[in-house]
Amino acid sequence: MTVKQLSLPELTQGCRQFGIGKVGLWREPVQAYGVAKTAALVRSAGLEVTTLCRGGFLTGIDPGERAAALADNRRAVDEAAALGTDTLVLVSGGLPAGGKDLCGARERVADALAELAPYAESHGVRLAVEPLHPMFAADRCVVSTLAQALDLAERFPAHQVGVTVDTYHVWWDDRAPAGIARAGAAGRIHAFQLADWTTPLPAGVLNGRGQLGDGSIDLRAWRGYVEAAGYSGPIEVELFNEELWARDGRAVLKETAARFLEHAA
Amino acid sequence: MTVKQLSLPELTQGCRQFGIGKVGLWREPVQAYGVAKTAALVRSAGLEVTTLCRGGFLTGIDPGERAAALADNRRAVDEAAALGTDTLVLVSGGLPAGGKDLCGARERVADALAELAPYAESHGVRLAVEPLHPMFAADRCVVSTLAQALDLAERFPAHQVGVTVDTYHVWWDDRAPAGIARAGAAGRIHAFQLADWTTPLPAGVLNGRGQLGDGSIDLRAWRGYVEAAGYSGPIEVELFNEELWARDGRAVLKETAARFLEHAA
Repeated sequence: MTVKQLSLPELTQGCRQFGIGKVGLWREPVQAYGVAKTAALVRSAGLEVTTLCRGGFLTGIDPGERAAALADNRRAVDEAAALGTDTLVLVSGGLPAGGKDLCGARERVADALAELAPYAESHGVRLAVEPLHPMFAADRCVVSTLAQALDLAERFPAHQVGVTVDTYHVWWDDRAPAGIARAGAAGRIHAFQLADWTTPLPAGVLNGRGQLGDGSIDLRAWRGYVEAAGYSGPIEVELFNEELWARDGRAVLKETAARFLEHAA
Repeated sequence: MTVKQLSLPELTQGCRQFGIGKVGLWREPVQAYGVAKTAALVRSAGLEVTTLCRGGFLTGIDPGERAAALADNRRAVDEAAALGTDTLVLVSGGLPAGGKDLCGARERVADALAELAPYAESHGVRLAVEPLHPMFAADRCVVSTLAQALDLAERFPAHQVGVTVDTYHVWWDDRAPAGIARAGAAGRIHAFQLADWTTPLPAGVLNGRGQLGDGSIDLRAWRGYVEAAGYSGPIEVELFNEELWARDGRAVLKETAARFLEHAA
């Protein structure tokens, strides 16, 4: 998503050129290109898929809406399996229209996980519940802290449900390092993502994630927390940023790889 | 601040007309009108000043900057005393330019409180540390949760330092009700403010606070939490909202009083 202006063939070629051996993919471009075709493309480039983003949006109350969301999440599991990744990132969803009950919405996420987790396991896929920054609590993700994500995940076996740690979403939280230790001890850190925090935030706040090193987050410290907790998996860089998307995608990919080495290696 | 388009005489007249017996003031309009003149105006209208907003911005590292911030906060204490309110709301300030150390910045706030709290007490004023929503952690307030605010406040006697509970800033936090109980038990809820959460957030995210009832916050529930914790003080409505500021201020004041009755009474 950091370089969504690139086609999947351009992306895989760029990864090879810049020494990036693994790549996290999003469902929409994969579906547009074709799931099997993407899997073949990635394989032929010698790349591994780290995670598939994203399932989720499981907070609806309407039965038809819930059934559709669950069906879509089962398809996401199928896609992850086809791409050869063992991890599907989940963003829970926000409040239903007119809703004010965050606790109730979080419980509906738990109910949905109970249906999805066994299905995912049977396809060799783990679910990675991602807490999003509290500024998304109303309209995108009622799970706002790592502690909340772990409270959900711990109702299930670790090989079924864990968490995604994204620096952009947790950097402000003085309890997040303890949450990372708690997650790591149980083998529940299923994905680790980097983005920096820059201000001012743009309208809608979705596409303001900063290039590594441009913002307020001590990225190396957060990498240290997850590694001290036993995490040795891939590190993704996930930037939603209109300015980066407006630039040449290969230049952004090259810059991002260099920034990773400078600020997180 | 909800109706900053009104002059102070218009505001006090409007409060009387709409049955609002107490009013929270901000320093800038008070300074522009004159502190003594404002105090006389409010007194002659039969109003009480609930709180003065705001002191703070105490995270600087540069000694000259820190000295200036402390001096400005002592002036804020003087102004609060002159206005007859016992409560000065403090917003801690964000990270210094280029900074990434939230914990260090919070410690500098604690150091500043140690200097300001005795001064405030000697003028009959309590400090009310306000946690701001985590989306302001970098550029406005490194104190992002009620728990963090209490960790700071509890280093001092409750009659010197407490907290401000603002629904806009804490509504997403499942630990905030416990924080309210903890604050109330120690007599540290020094101010309680209402605003609703509406989306999409505007660019810069500062001026998107929703009119009561327009958003996702169960305001009555939060009022219940503070009252269950023993709070019986005034309830302020503090809306930073460009759309409200563009309207007739008296109409907004009247609407806000009606919304309060509908959604929080």
